[in-house]
Amino acid sequence: MNYKMVFYNLGRVVAVEGAALLLPLITSLLYSEWTVALAFLATMGIALAIGVVFSLVFKPKDGTIYSGEGFIIVALAWVAVSLVGALPFVFSGEIPSYVDALFESISGFTTTGASILTDVEKMSHGILMWRSFTHWIGGMGVLVLVIAVTKKASERNIHIMRAEMPGPIVDKITPRSKDTAKYLYLIYVGLTVVEFILLLCGGMDVFESVIHSFGTAGTGGFSSNNSSIAEYSPYIQWVIAVFMMLFAINFNVYFLIIIGKGLNALRSRELWTYIGVVVVATGIICANIFSIYGNFGDALRHAFFQTTSVMSTTGFSTATFSEWNEVCKGILFVLMFIGGCAGSTAGGIKLTRVILMFKTTRHELKRMLHPRVERSVKFDGKKVEEKTLHGVGVYLALYVILLLIVFFLLCFDAGFSFETNFSAAVSCFNNVGPAFDQAFASYAAYSPFSKIVLSFAMLLGRLEIYPLILVFLPSTWSRNH
Amino acid sequence: MNYKMVFYNLGRVVAVEGAALLLPLITSLLYSEWTVALAFLATMGIALAIGVVFSLVFKPKDGTIYSGEGFIIVALAWVAVSLVGALPFVFSGEIPSYVDALFESISGFTTTGASILTDVEKMSHGILMWRSFTHWIGGMGVLVLVIAVTKKASERNIHIMRAEMPGPIVDKITPRSKDTAKYLYLIYVGLTVVEFILLLCGGMDVFESVIHSFGTAGTGGFSSNNSSIAEYSPYIQWVIAVFMMLFAINFNVYFLIIIGKGLNALRSRELWTYIGVVVVATGIICANIFSIYGNFGDALRHAFFQTTSVMSTTGFSTATFSEWNEVCKGILFVLMFIGGCAGSTAGGIKLTRVILMFKTTRHELKRMLHPRVERSVKFDGKKVEEKTLHGVGVYLALYVILLLIVFFLLCFDAGFSFETNFSAAVSCFNNVGPAFDQAFASYAAYSPFSKIVLSFAMLLGRLEIYPLILVFLPSTWSRNH
Repeated sequence: MNYKMVFYNLGRVVAVEGAALLLPLITSLLYSEWTVALAFLATMGIALAIGVVFSLVFKPKDGTIYSGEGFIIVALAWVAVSLVGALPFVFSGEIPSYVDALFESISGFTTTGASILTDVEKMSHGILMWRSFTHWIGGMGVLVLVIAVTKKASERNIHIMRAEMPGPIVDKITPRSKDTAKYLYLIYVGLTVVEFILLLCGGMDVFESVIHSFGTAGTGGFSSNNSSIAEYSPYIQWVIAVFMMLFAINFNVYFLIIIGKGLNALRSRELWTYIGVVVVATGIICANIFSIYGNFGDALRHAFFQTTSVMSTTGFSTATFSEWNEVCKGILFVLMFIGGCAGSTAGGIKLTRVILMFKTTRHELKRMLHPRVERSVKFDGKKVEEKTLHGVGVYLALYVILLLIVFFLLCFDAGFSFETNFSAAVSCFNNVGPAFDQAFASYAAYSPFSKIVLSFAMLLGRLEIYPLILVFLPSTWSRNH
Repeated sequence: MNYKMVFYNLGRVVAVEGAALLLPLITSLLYSEWTVALAFLATMGIALAIGVVFSLVFKPKDGTIYSGEGFIIVALAWVAVSLVGALPFVFSGEIPSYVDALFESISGFTTTGASILTDVEKMSHGILMWRSFTHWIGGMGVLVLVIAVTKKASERNIHIMRAEMPGPIVDKITPRSKDTAKYLYLIYVGLTVVEFILLLCGGMDVFESVIHSFGTAGTGGFSSNNSSIAEYSPYIQWVIAVFMMLFAINFNVYFLIIIGKGLNALRSRELWTYIGVVVVATGIICANIFSIYGNFGDALRHAFFQTTSVMSTTGFSTATFSEWNEVCKGILFVLMFIGGCAGSTAGGIKLTRVILMFKTTRHELKRMLHPRVERSVKFDGKKVEEKTLHGVGVYLALYVILLLIVFFLLCFDAGFSFETNFSAAVSCFNNVGPAFDQAFASYAAYSPFSKIVLSFAMLLGRLEIYPLILVFLPSTWSRNH
């Protein structure tokens, strides 16, 4: 294990986080929130100090990173960023309990959007900006950001990007990982800015437009209103719904469009499956809630909004969907599991895995009938390696086991219904945010123990399990190359 | 596809079922239940007629069975046996709706023990005997029974036994499948008789002792009382609890003990894991319900009873455990998923699969760190083939997908809580029986559509998914050898 390289990278990440705190600092200065500004300044000081000290102390002579280091860096970086990111909440006094602040910070960076706050509207502008900015940073990945902004390009970074990016197969968009990171951020920033402008055009003010653009882009879901998106105009709701849908699409599609190979993008099996699922789910929910809203336009808007919100694992809401009938809740619950496309900012199991699983099943069934015939599974015309398929199966099984453990640990918290605990586990693990029943609006009522369990679940979901488990294996740390 | 062989075997199975109806027929005659006796006679007539006609019409020239035929025979045999087994309920007028009767019949044969009845105690003795006898027949497998009782031994039967027996790896106990079937039945009958005698010694009458021995042996759970086992003496409750535990252990263990290799049996990893899980779960539940029952003896008995009942997927109850706190319900819920050992009559995912999954995960994690090092997973000292591991992963993933589909379809039934629908799906899929909340005592309130969905889930669980899916694949039917 190249310890120096691990801690050197941790230092860099925390330093970049320190720089990122400039945005909420400026926000709080603009709104004359002096205590909050001080909280940000203090946190920036701490972050930069950690960054400088780590860079000096752990300056590596050997920049080698293997996959082991990649996983460890990603796992520890996310924990470090969350720990530091929770400080402004505590320092400003707006979330006095550190466990609560950490829950909020992890929920932000993992783009979950689950909150322990019961009244968002009394928070200061600076804190709200930071909360939503964590979504935007976490959506693309804290380390991808570091790779994009640092000067030295290194091919070894691909191990870090592989460990952080969602989805079973990480395509290298360009041959160099630094270029890939830059292209990803170009698309990300571009889409965010377009949404911001469209929201402004709908009469939303600048602050709220920024907040909600960040929340949509990272597929996070923190809002500056207690009622989420419910009180905005239909135009605003449509804009956000469409962008939630766009941010859950594999960024490769946009990259192909940018370089003029848009037709190739249209051949993606995942893209069409995604659009198909959205259309069908919207249709069924729309039919089921028609009687509540009385007119087709409203029913369609709420149905489409909630479908894209849950499937992109954003978690914004225009209606109290936990009070819709069981058909709608059933659909949304299943969509929570599936999540968005691989290579997007969305969470969940990812559509690619679900499609691969269906293909593997067919493959397995055929193998049962004709054990001696050699076959292979194809995806978008390319042969999928047996190893990848095996990996998807193991991932899903592991996912279910860990989900049950999280649910089980939540059961120790007295006073919550089965529905609350189970949907809270699923919602946090899949980085959605709101759960059903008692955890629809806020997670405030849970005990500190449950909040820590759910925070861990959010990290497990965002980092796709492996990095966090590998941290606890002694063999990850001891091996030499 | 060797169609003749498929239908020939279906005929044999239905004919054996006709013969099995003798037991409830005699019961109803003993209790002078003439209408019920007529219902059994009519069903026997139909079953034997089907048996004779199929044997004559489909007499195969070529007795070849490949794995394809094995799966098809098993799937269709279970459907046929359930369809015929539902007739006495309808003919006797005690369950007038055929859908209800079919649910009860499938629940019986799959050893689920979920019931659409709201008042078991008003049923006739003959019908109760048939209900419980289906548990006993289904526990070991309807086709294993046919193989055990038919004269001609054929090595090809191994394909049928593999398709019907639970667990990822079917050991051939003896080199010849007919002998294996006989040994399994010898153990099965022996344990059932011992339990029967012990129940008699506890003061239970002959009829109830038979009913409850059948229910325990098949890990089914149908009782002749509305309150299940709650009103019996602690002695009776302990006997049933211990036997539920015994019937959920791999029958290989008993076979090894019989042939004097008991020490080998003690080396089984699955056995010790099983005992460990039972002890830990009993302990935690006992501590949580102590305050309800006020004394250690009662709390321990109820805790042990419910743990073995749910883990063996039997579903008997001594207490309304759906009213225990969320910790207890959480544990029982997780145990429902796990189920018993492979090669027992218990349902669920099976401990072997869970253990293999943990080993595969460790293997996968190590492969991530050292991609180039070749390793293998070992189980009880033997190397497990990569194919088997892959199979376990696919099985679990498929299991979750199908479970979610079942849950989703149940959501269309209005008026049931999330907890009811989700636990009903899990309980039926894992062949447990009772669910939480509204489906604890009876499934009567569900619509016919939901009952059919749940019946299908029970079959999926009992036959471990594949046979039922292969029936729907055209390629299973069309291929030639």
